[in-house]
Order: sequence, then C-alpha cells, then structure tokens
Amino acid sequence: MTGALAGERASVARLISLVEKGGDSARAAIARLYPHTGSAYTVGITGAPGAGKSTLTDKLISRIRKEGVEVGVLAIDPSSPFSGGAILGDRVRMQDHATDPGVFIRSMATRGHLGGLSLATPQAVRVLDAAGKPWVLIETVGVGQVEIEVAGAADTTMVVVNPGWGDAVQAAKAGLLEIADLFVVNKADRDGAAETVRDLEFMLDLSLAPPPGETAWRPPIVKTVASRGEGFEELWEAIGSHRAYLETDGRLAARRTKRIRDELRAIVVERLYERAGTVCAGDQFEELAASVEARQVDPYTAAESLLSESLS
Amino acid sequence: MTGALAGERASVARLISLVEKGGDSARAAIARLYPHTGSAYTVGITGAPGAGKSTLTDKLISRIRKEGVEVGVLAIDPSSPFSGGAILGDRVRMQDHATDPGVFIRSMATRGHLGGLSLATPQAVRVLDAAGKPWVLIETVGVGQVEIEVAGAADTTMVVVNPGWGDAVQAAKAGLLEIADLFVVNKADRDGAAETVRDLEFMLDLSLAPPPGETAWRPPIVKTVASRGEGFEELWEAIGSHRAYLETDGRLAARRTKRIRDELRAIVVERLYERAGTVCAGDQFEELAASVEARQVDPYTAAESLLSESLS
Repeated sequence: MTGALAGERASVARLISLVEKGGDSARAAIARLYPHTGSAYTVGITGAPGAGKSTLTDKLISRIRKEGVEVGVLAIDPSSPFSGGAILGDRVRMQDHATDPGVFIRSMATRGHLGGLSLATPQAVRVLDAAGKPWVLIETVGVGQVEIEVAGAADTTMVVVNPGWGDAVQAAKAGLLEIADLFVVNKADRDGAAETVRDLEFMLDLSLAPPPGETAWRPPIVKTVASRGEGFEELWEAIGSHRAYLETDGRLAARRTKRIRDELRAIVVERLYERAGTVCAGDQFEELAASVEARQVDPYTAAESLLSESLS
Repeated sequence: MTGALAGERASVARLISLVEKGGDSARAAIARLYPHTGSAYTVGITGAPGAGKSTLTDKLISRIRKEGVEVGVLAIDPSSPFSGGAILGDRVRMQDHATDPGVFIRSMATRGHLGGLSLATPQAVRVLDAAGKPWVLIETVGVGQVEIEVAGAADTTMVVVNPGWGDAVQAAKAGLLEIADLFVVNKADRDGAAETVRDLEFMLDLSLAPPPGETAWRPPIVKTVASRGEGFEELWEAIGSHRAYLETDGRLAARRTKRIRDELRAIVVERLYERAGTVCAGDQFEELAASVEARQVDPYTAAESLLSESLS
C-alpha cells in the first residue's frame, strides 16, 4: 500500500488487480487508500468501435505529458477469447509510453459479474488518484449501457465520432449525446467531416434547454486526426475550458457528489448480488429450476420462494 | 390476457408494455401466461452499429413468412433523446410488414434499471410465444455486455459483420465469437468480403476444441446483401441446420435449461435490487453519502452500515 501511495508501478499494478477482483481484501484496500484520494481529474473517452479512441488516447497522453504532469490510463476493452496477437494491436500502440515513468496504462476487462465494470472502474481510478496521478483517462467503447455509464462517470467526458453519414446519428442512438461534455470528430481529414460537425451541431440545437437557473454548457466540437497528432492543442484547450467551467460555482463538487451516491448504490447492489449468489446455489435452487423447466411453476414465483427462504 | 393468447395485436402490445415495465402486475401476468409458453424458436441477430441488422431482420421476416408461419420481432434499440425522425429510420424500414397480420414488430428500450434489459427481453419473448408466434427474432446491437448477453440468449444467435479490414477482429474483441451460432457477412457485394470470411474462418480455427464428448458446431458463414435480399435462402438453410443440430441429442433442451437458470438468478438479483432501492433512500443514506464525500468514511464501509441496518 505504501508503495502504491508512493506511485511505485508494481505496487500500483498489484493494487488495481486487487480492486478489480473485488471481495473482502479489495474493500479493505479501498478503505485504507480512500483518505488519500480526491485530487485526480478524470477524463472519459468513448465512441463506437473503430473510431480511433486508442490512438486519440495515446496522443492525448503525449499532450498531457507536455504539461510535465503524470497521467494514468484505464483502457476498458471488451475481453476476448484471444489474449494476444493482432486483437491487442491498439493496446500495444499505446506502448509508445511504455518507457515513460510518468505514464501508467492499464487494460481492464469488461466481463465479470453484473455491475462489475461500473464498480471496479472507480476503484481503479482511486488507486491511480492515491498514487499521485493528477490526470486519469478512462477509455471505453461507447456502446452498451454499462460502458456508456462508465465513460459518463468522469469529470470531462469526450465522445469520439468519425466523418461519414450516420456516425453522429449512431452516437445519438447509443445515448452518447447526453453524456458528452465535448465531441471529437476524429479522422477529420476524411470526407464528410464538415457534415458530421453540422449533424452534431444540429443535434445539440435540438437538445433540451438546461434546468432552470443553470448555465448551459454546450459541448464544443473538436476536429482531430489522431494518427498524425493533429488537433490536440484544440482538444487540450477544450478539456481545459470544460474543467474551468466545472470548477466554477461548485459544479465539479456537485458532479462528484452525484457520483458518490451512484457508487454507494452500486456497492449496495453488489453486496446484495453476492447474497443472490448464495441464494442461487444448492439443492433448493436446482429443484426450483427443474420445476420451472417443467412449467409447474413460473420463474417469478420460483424466485420468490428462493428469496423468502434466504432472507427470512 | 385471453386476447393476447389469441394473438390479438393490441392485447399483445399491451402485455409487452406491461412486462417491460416490470413490477408486481408484470410478475402476475407472466405467472398466468407461463403455462402457454415453450413452443417458440428464438433467433438472436446482433452485430456492430451500422452492420445492417435491421435490413437483414426485415428480409429474414419475409423469408420466414414464405413458410406460411407467423413471426414476432423484438428490436432492442438504444433509446434516444429523440423519439422520432431520422433516428428511427431503420425501425421504420421494417414497417414493410406493417400491414401483414402475421408479423408483430416491437421496439424495446435498452435503458432502465440494472439488468432490466436482460430480464425484460425473455418476458417479452414469452408474450410472443404465448401469443402463438412460432418464430421470434431478437435484434440487438452487438456491443456492450448486456446487449451481447441478450442476443446470446436465443436458440440460434447470428452475428452480422461487414466486409472490411478489422470488422471480424472487432467482433472478436466485443466477445461476439463466443455467442455466434452462425455468421452473416452482410453487404457482401462490397470489397473485402472474401477476406472477412477468411478472417472469420481463421478465428474459428483458433477457437478452443469442444468440451470432451460433445460434437462441435462450427458456425457457418453466410454472405448476404440484405438491401437487395440476396443470400436469404442460404441464411434460412443455415438457421435450419443449426436448429436441426440443436434438436438432436437434447441440445436445445440443455440450452434452454441453462437459460432458465440464468433467468432465475437475474430475477433474484432484480428483487434484491428493488430492496437496494429502499436501502438507498432516506435520511440515513443522505447522511452516509455526505460522510463519504467528506472522506470521513470510505464507500464500502458506508454501504456496509446501510446494509446491516436494512437486512437485520
């Protein structure tokens, strides 16, 4: 623990593995490092598969490093039956920073029990926070309710789209408009970049007005060509503007308060889920499952019997 | 209920809305219709956004209707702040079948409480099953753990990819290989279709051997051009082969048994989640959340206090 608090790579890596796994020792570790957290600023990076999120993250790391500060990165990758080779290509690309002691990159798997990802991610962020990283980037694929939720639970969330008909529309369909604090049109050297910017502007125009009494933040739209490192000054500036906006009038604190509540709820759910694991094992479960299969009892009535037995 | 069992459209629609919402009346409805279920064969259709799943589903409906049987469709669409217009374009396209009384199409939202989609979908399938649809298609976006789980919980699951470098790899990264009973390379008139087939074959070659004693099912790869209705005889034949495979040696029953167990677990979790909602409300929750924000207590210890109060 002291090693991790001092920012030692091996200790940080071990601690993230521990909190990712969950369970009693993870909880004990979080309890100990929690007082040392609260200074990191988190940036969520999300978008459809193939939007160039990993390359963008890579170049954003470089931009942040120019400020002379450290950065931690959580790359949340759908886990795969293949644990090496071409599939890990984009992860490998980020290894540009492998020899930089000021950069800590970690892949996390999306599989696991229900709610696992949305709960494990804030704990991993905390480890990096306690280890003294002032910036933590969280890259997730922007499709799927859990993944979008995780990306949205950052201080600044950027949504990456590509030029081309329908990409902005697909982002809207996936629910990405609501979580975006800024948009990045990556691969902006391709045809259709201007149209995609226009589509996004149009959809932002359609969005609802801010709640009464609140100043609206209108997500800026930044064009990048991540593969060539273009547009990163503008992107860095846009992140800075959003951060400055949040740091005014207690908005950042309010956003973080909401996250704490959400997390507390998620932990309660996780603990109850563990209890469900106990309920859904053993002879009574097997017998009831067999009765449901035989259509002697419906699934809801069966679940009710399991619960009334176990919680009484 | 009797209306729905007789297949009356309005009653079926109302009943799906009811079970989608969840709660006591949904549970009561499922208990009543459950004995009338068990005859529908379900087909999951999944793949990345833009793969052409809706058009494919549309043409598959037409192919099934040629057999003279009815078909129910659940289109699971990420919900959107925009409830009309261009965003719903691909849903609207399926309205080719709007005047066909043998086709029932229903969109479901992916938002809602944790586990909502994975639990609501089998209930909606049950309604269509009880309403006498021998085929039920379930179309979901193939990214995101919940969405993939839902598509994988069908009797036959097809994964739709497009020609082009990396699409097969992206599917593998998203965990789609494990759930695929068959692959569709849609838009197969585009460049790179042969390479995509080869990539898929290669990844199937890499896949693990079947468990000892089991015959391996090697997912066939079918090429379609859904927009022109090409390849649907082959697709229908591939679905038929997989169905025949499952219907041999009790494989279909085994697959459904596993689903019943998963569902029973999901229901138990849902009920416990409702309990968590009660725990995470009220003064004690607000006080604890404030202490966590002030870093006087860590989130896990706070959750523990909430739970020990409420479950004691």
